[in-house]
Amino acid sequence: MRYINNKLRIENVGLDKIAKNYGTPSYVYSYSQLKKNIIDFEKNFKSFSPLICFAIKSNTNVNLIKEIKKFGLGADVVSAGELMMALKAGINPKKIVFSGVGKTSKEIAYAIEKKILLINAESHSEINEIERIAKIKKKKVNIGIRLNPNTDAKTLSQISTGKKENKFGVNGKTFVELVKFCKKSNNIVLKCLSVHIGSQILDHKPYEKMLNILSKILNKIKYNFEYIDLGGGMGISYNNSDNKLNFEKYNIAIKKFLKKHQSKIIFEPGRSIIGNTGILLTKVVYIKNSERKNFIVLDSAMNDLIRPALYGAKHKILPFLKKRKNSNKIYEFVGPICETTDKFSTLKKFQELKEKDLIAICDVGAYGMSLSSNYNVRPKAIELLIKGTKIRVIRKRQNLKDLM
Amino acid sequence: MRYINNKLRIENVGLDKIAKNYGTPSYVYSYSQLKKNIIDFEKNFKSFSPLICFAIKSNTNVNLIKEIKKFGLGADVVSAGELMMALKAGINPKKIVFSGVGKTSKEIAYAIEKKILLINAESHSEINEIERIAKIKKKKVNIGIRLNPNTDAKTLSQISTGKKENKFGVNGKTFVELVKFCKKSNNIVLKCLSVHIGSQILDHKPYEKMLNILSKILNKIKYNFEYIDLGGGMGISYNNSDNKLNFEKYNIAIKKFLKKHQSKIIFEPGRSIIGNTGILLTKVVYIKNSERKNFIVLDSAMNDLIRPALYGAKHKILPFLKKRKNSNKIYEFVGPICETTDKFSTLKKFQELKEKDLIAICDVGAYGMSLSSNYNVRPKAIELLIKGTKIRVIRKRQNLKDLM
Repeated sequence: MRYINNKLRIENVGLDKIAKNYGTPSYVYSYSQLKKNIIDFEKNFKSFSPLICFAIKSNTNVNLIKEIKKFGLGADVVSAGELMMALKAGINPKKIVFSGVGKTSKEIAYAIEKKILLINAESHSEINEIERIAKIKKKKVNIGIRLNPNTDAKTLSQISTGKKENKFGVNGKTFVELVKFCKKSNNIVLKCLSVHIGSQILDHKPYEKMLNILSKILNKIKYNFEYIDLGGGMGISYNNSDNKLNFEKYNIAIKKFLKKHQSKIIFEPGRSIIGNTGILLTKVVYIKNSERKNFIVLDSAMNDLIRPALYGAKHKILPFLKKRKNSNKIYEFVGPICETTDKFSTLKKFQELKEKDLIAICDVGAYGMSLSSNYNVRPKAIELLIKGTKIRVIRKRQNLKDLM
Repeated sequence: MRYINNKLRIENVGLDKIAKNYGTPSYVYSYSQLKKNIIDFEKNFKSFSPLICFAIKSNTNVNLIKEIKKFGLGADVVSAGELMMALKAGINPKKIVFSGVGKTSKEIAYAIEKKILLINAESHSEINEIERIAKIKKKKVNIGIRLNPNTDAKTLSQISTGKKENKFGVNGKTFVELVKFCKKSNNIVLKCLSVHIGSQILDHKPYEKMLNILSKILNKIKYNFEYIDLGGGMGISYNNSDNKLNFEKYNIAIKKFLKKHQSKIIFEPGRSIIGNTGILLTKVVYIKNSERKNFIVLDSAMNDLIRPALYGAKHKILPFLKKRKNSNKIYEFVGPICETTDKFSTLKKFQELKEKDLIAICDVGAYGMSLSSNYNVRPKAIELLIKGTKIRVIRKRQNLKDLM
């Protein structure tokens, strides 16, 4: 994204052209940014060439997943639906790991049939269920066990997952018991230790701490895991105040870990691959002046992007047309939904806006469209992929009639 | 809902039968509860026979809206989609009001074409837009103007809408100006003063305060409004600690108001009509024991019901099978989604549960299904309407293939 002649472009396409031809609100992704993210990610960790499983939950657009697949990435899925989507995008089952605390019997059976790389189990009950189904199907199933390392990811409490009060994984004691249990099983092959401490992590230190805990456990149980799945959670920069995770330092910590423990590393990145590739292009419908502030009423709403309402997330907002003059009023960017929660951002000294102006809500590639809904019977936005000067519709705008 | 032989029923149908025949998770509504709510609502305010416009946003199931329509109710809509849904359910356009801060030109044009009762405008810009479109179409359009009475509804900040820091309506000064503006217009007929101070209001006093403010404004501007639209927001009891709004006291306040101002009252109730009619029937997939608490992993998730994650809402949870023995562990009811936000409730001294037990999450008729999503590529739940011993599918379970 850059301004040329004060007009905002994604790659070589002006946002005005997109709005004119495809309407608003629209999710617009940049192919070159996606490519850059994947190449950068691979480069950072190339010394141990990890298996990179894209976290489908962050973005479930099948055409985007197809593009990601072309770079050789696998998939991290958390439901039968996500598994089906990954397979539909052509991802090799041998590059798919299945995470999640509540896999149903049907989902486990489906994963076994599809011969995916690993089912990462999160409880004793789940392992029992996998064994029961594998026995019926007369199969040997490769699994991982998710350890809850009781590590504070120093991120938002809503997206922290590696503390003992969180529902995820099993504690060290249970982990040791489950390893013993799996060793005796005829239908389960324990191949992986998995861990995932949270999302949008900006500090590498929680990862270092996590690796130390893994190291201790591995030394204790003396079991040779073919895979160590370190999960995802790598944070990106949503605004000028936070920096993205320092990959280099994380890489150093992993290399140190691998000197003692020889396993193939699996990563499950979502946000760090897709987060900054997408914007939500939206139009100012009305400007409402009030005493203290001006409400900028947009044509996109919390049904399109719920992260601000759900997590208090702050997404950078950029005007399509750059002007010199800033408003001295506070601008509150809101959606049209009949709820106070339907608010994107409150900004001071934003440039002066007028009705019908175009706005880009930035960095919505991850957990944007995948969390969208039809609240207020609003059709879902169109999704577009930009590659150079080309605009490709990767998902049509929902029709009102489809909702009836 | 009641227990018979320690088994929970909706009307005359056991929840076990519903789970067996239709699976879980399922939204299950009681027709008799819906009927009771509507009759009670009408009875409470019968002395001035208001026009009751059901707030479609609270529940957009067309078959439920059809049932509501049969009792003579109109609809409060907030988008073209909701208007289309109300019309599809057979609601008379002359009983439909259109609210919302961000009505687009298309939406306004559609509402004018359909000759609905009122477009309740929320800003000067919107009134300009209505006038512009009405002029092109050579129509006279009936509108209301929404006043922001700067009244604290004493409810959650996320669902408070009547304070001056909220995006809704216009302040008293602007209201007076807009009345003057409308009087001069050839294409706009100002028929209504509308107001809506928030949701889930349990105390009648904010309503009294709101009526006093209306009274003052009306005395000042001396304009005869055919309608006064008091909005909705009437709170219901979600648990044992809060009581529903005292309708009687609200009724008294309105009757007092009407002695001075002769207008037809419009209400826009959603939650108070549909909230306590529905449950989310769900199954325990796994029970994970941890040191401090047991995680009860359900097969329903935040994509099915987002109110706990989004608003911190507490929904009562009932077991299908009532037992005498309580657990001495804390129970945390969570969904299978890979997020810590995906949590319904933390309860002490709940009865002992085991895997595969059935659970009812109560009072989810409003803002349950209407806010649901396909996050984690989870198909949407089935919706069922119970009437006596009859089970009617009012919306099919979404198919995974529909999501691909």
